[in-house]
Amino acid sequence: MTASPRQPPGARATRALVELAALVDGVVVGDGSVLISGVAGLEQAGPGHLSFYGNQKYKRQLLESKASAVLVGRDDDVSALTVSSVRVANPHLAFARIAQEFVRQVRVPPGVAVGAFVHPGATIDSTASVLAGATISEGAVIKARAVIGAGSFVGERVVIGDDTRLVANVSVLDDCLVGARCLLHPGVVIGADGFGFAFDGEQGQHVKIPQTGSVRIEDDVEIGANSCVDRATTGETVVGHGSKIDNLVQVGHNSLIGPLSILCAQVGLSGTSVLGTGVVLAGQVGIAGHLKVGDLARVAAQSGVISDVADGATVMGSPSLPHREHLRIQAASRLLPALQKTLKALTRRLEALEQKSTKP
Amino acid sequence: MTASPRQPPGARATRALVELAALVDGVVVGDGSVLISGVAGLEQAGPGHLSFYGNQKYKRQLLESKASAVLVGRDDDVSALTVSSVRVANPHLAFARIAQEFVRQVRVPPGVAVGAFVHPGATIDSTASVLAGATISEGAVIKARAVIGAGSFVGERVVIGDDTRLVANVSVLDDCLVGARCLLHPGVVIGADGFGFAFDGEQGQHVKIPQTGSVRIEDDVEIGANSCVDRATTGETVVGHGSKIDNLVQVGHNSLIGPLSILCAQVGLSGTSVLGTGVVLAGQVGIAGHLKVGDLARVAAQSGVISDVADGATVMGSPSLPHREHLRIQAASRLLPALQKTLKALTRRLEALEQKSTKP
Amino acid sequence: MTASPRQPPGARATRALVELAALVDGVVVGDGSVLISGVAGLEQAGPGHLSFYGNQKYKRQLLESKASAVLVGRDDDVSALTVSSVRVANPHLAFARIAQEFVRQVRVPPGVAVGAFVHPGATIDSTASVLAGATISEGAVIKARAVIGAGSFVGERVVIGDDTRLVANVSVLDDCLVGARCLLHPGVVIGADGFGFAFDGEQGQHVKIPQTGSVRIEDDVEIGANSCVDRATTGETVVGHGSKIDNLVQVGHNSLIGPLSILCAQVGLSGTSVLGTGVVLAGQVGIAGHLKVGDLARVAAQSGVISDVADGATVMGSPSLPHREHLRIQAASRLLPALQKTLKALTRRLEALEQKSTKP
Repeated sequence: MTASPRQPPGARATRALVELAALVDGVVVGDGSVLISGVAGLEQAGPGHLSFYGNQKYKRQLLESKASAVLVGRDDDVSALTVSSVRVANPHLAFARIAQEFVRQVRVPPGVAVGAFVHPGATIDSTASVLAGATISEGAVIKARAVIGAGSFVGERVVIGDDTRLVANVSVLDDCLVGARCLLHPGVVIGADGFGFAFDGEQGQHVKIPQTGSVRIEDDVEIGANSCVDRATTGETVVGHGSKIDNLVQVGHNSLIGPLSILCAQVGLSGTSVLGTGVVLAGQVGIAGHLKVGDLARVAAQSGVISDVADGATVMGSPSLPHREHLRIQAASRLLPALQKTLKALTRRLEALEQKSTKP
Repeated sequence: MTASPRQPPGARATRALVELAALVDGVVVGDGSVLISGVAGLEQAGPGHLSFYGNQKYKRQLLESKASAVLVGRDDDVSALTVSSVRVANPHLAFARIAQEFVRQVRVPPGVAVGAFVHPGATIDSTASVLAGATISEGAVIKARAVIGAGSFVGERVVIGDDTRLVANVSVLDDCLVGARCLLHPGVVIGADGFGFAFDGEQGQHVKIPQTGSVRIEDDVEIGANSCVDRATTGETVVGHGSKIDNLVQVGHNSLIGPLSILCAQVGLSGTSVLGTGVVLAGQVGIAGHLKVGDLARVAAQSGVISDVADGATVMGSPSLPHREHLRIQAASRLLPALQKTLKALTRRLEALEQKSTKP
Repeated sequence: MTASPRQPPGARATRALVELAALVDGVVVGDGSVLISGVAGLEQAGPGHLSFYGNQKYKRQLLESKASAVLVGRDDDVSALTVSSVRVANPHLAFARIAQEFVRQVRVPPGVAVGAFVHPGATIDSTASVLAGATISEGAVIKARAVIGAGSFVGERVVIGDDTRLVANVSVLDDCLVGARCLLHPGVVIGADGFGFAFDGEQGQHVKIPQTGSVRIEDDVEIGANSCVDRATTGETVVGHGSKIDNLVQVGHNSLIGPLSILCAQVGLSGTSVLGTGVVLAGQVGIAGHLKVGDLARVAAQSGVISDVADGATVMGSPSLPHREHLRIQAASRLLPALQKTLKALTRRLEALEQKSTKP
């Protein structure tokens, strides 16, 4: 079995460059008959590889690359390039599309493997796979072509959608729903209890607020290794369709993540965070509770958001500010020691003047 | 099996509001005969639900809620409310208490499930449950009504206390002790080696310091998904009774966490941290090694603590400062660009005066 | 089975102090015939224990320790010490070496345990152990004396080197290589997909960039609980020999970590980070993508690195700066509110002078 689609270890199909260019509305510059056997980054590429040039910063890497051909932007100056290139609107996107052409889709054999534990009250589609060491609880539904990887746990009444894969050692707890074509990497935990307690001063204890809600992961969501999406206190925690979550991310109870959002590694959402559509949170960002981050908003790495973020805004810092303001303050901060000196000198000069002016 | 107590999927018991009010020393305002079938937050609640109003910030949500009744504070102005209410000292706490009335306690069948692996030298109470894919090692003791969830690993000589639940895929390594009524969410790791090495410059290697201590989790502790409590180098790492730890938290070797403390998601404690009673660390806080955080101290989110924190103090920032001082500095920082301009203008004015004064 | 080497629960071998001193080129001060039965930190030590004194900060603990003997530096003043001591060049390193003398090496019985699932196309060395609930996939190779702990998943064509231990619930995905004498703590995930997507604005979706590379963990690497090392997009993500990674660390795709580096808990490396030899990243550090951190560079806790770090440099802050500059700015920041006041007073004095000077 495989954790992800992968290039075959042995021989690969080769394709003519011109044929690949057609898939991405590209215009070949140079020899279109070059045979391409795979894709790779500029620095990793060798003969037979198609690479891409998406950022002027990598001009040197472009010129030193051993790739046989490169995807470039419509207006990039690639006159110094000695290999063929393909002009496209978005080299990075074209690279992604073409890369998928070279992926061997490994099919896991359908059925329940020896060493998997399936409750008789669970429903497993005949095309789905349940691998060794996985447990499927009563009332769970595993849909077509879904793969429940080794050591994964699927709780009661959970639904796992078509073509979704729990790679290995994933836990999806009771009553949670996972949509179609999702990819949950190892160690992902869906539906652990939200973190909610009320302190009882008389008895000297934190009284647990029962977490009786659930989690709904919509279609086409990817969740990185060891990330956690907590169950709602009541109602649902939702990850919207097409959103992508990196490793070690915490999604607090009752959070609502809109579609097509991107949460980079080690981001933490407190409870009841509301993220719009296409939000991007860079690595290690923290969002305080009960806040709204608007559509297409972007939050820079390590920021701490403690107030709502407007649609389309870019914020930065801890606590976060509009990024231009933050950068101005940051630049000013670097001058602080100098500013202190200036101020001292000024004070001395002022004293001198004052003394002078009091003298007759 | 269930990962946590949960409301029954089908019919629920209903209770009269006046009866629930009595459980929490509450005074009904309005109709006490209203039937309540469950609890929910103000925004999630529907007919038949009891909700709570704990913060003036949510006045709008209170008035728009579809709940059939609401727990409110003794002095809250709820004249605009059209449904029944119950006056209590602490609405949040009362909500927690009443919510537990509606939780169906799912009993996992006792015994060792098919597909669980129990060493003959382990002791499993006859009322305890060991689920499929779990492994119990030699000398381990699983006490009354404890549940060892699917795919969990319990090492040699580990003791798991009465009524404690390891939800799924939890690892408790050799010689660690977990008290009674604890709840360990999926992916929790208790007793991984502390991070300790001594560099040997001659041999060019980091020499491992054997981590021969253990971990003791006291009673009534909850630990969130994928959190880690490391084994002591020698002696014990301790999590005090009634403390609650959220997801993805790191507790370094030889840390001592006092009772009733709260560690929010993604907090990191370096080795030999000492936390008092009732400490609250907000999300993503880091505590440097060998520090003491006093009783009832509070540390704001994303703070970095690099010196001891006094009892009852609230600190903030990285490095952390008393929170008032931090807020003052933060406010001043926002004015820095303006301050720079002021200083420049001042300098010019001073120069003008100086020139004037030197002129005869 | 045991997760790590551990002192025997019952009787231990005792050794004369003079004999232990010889192992570390130490000079005994006092009685060399004292019998030592184990090692412990100054505060945890009791009679029969050898401890160490590595930092002047712990003088009080040294004098109050109940240890029977202490390792001290060649030039430490220990005249107040009433027990025997051993003078060595590096007490911490000597402690590590001697501690290993008291560790009982628990041998896990070789072979495939009942309840482990090994594909017939996998190769398991006859001296290796595969424990209950572990899955070994087709083409995987498990080398001599390696231990694949309970509930671990080993993907296709993975190679696990001699004497390497996957403690429990570890996932090593297809095609990844783990060297000899490595220690992977519970919940570690090697080879989850790198986080790479290209946005397709027309179709409104994030298109996955297939992650077809792999991960190579070199010899003598330790990786802490629930840490993740992502698979390269193409090529390899590499963790260099002898590097040590703490818990909950994220290593992004295509990162290259040089040998003998130290990554503390909750560190995050973005994709394509390059770390030199002997780099030290303190807790919760974040490294932005495509950066180079030079040999022996050190990054302080919670720092955010957004530009290359030179060999041997120490940086601090978010964004990080040379640590002296950062400390200067930080000190100046604390004076900001005072500085604002000074500036106001100065302005008033200047105004007074100006008025005076304009008067005839």
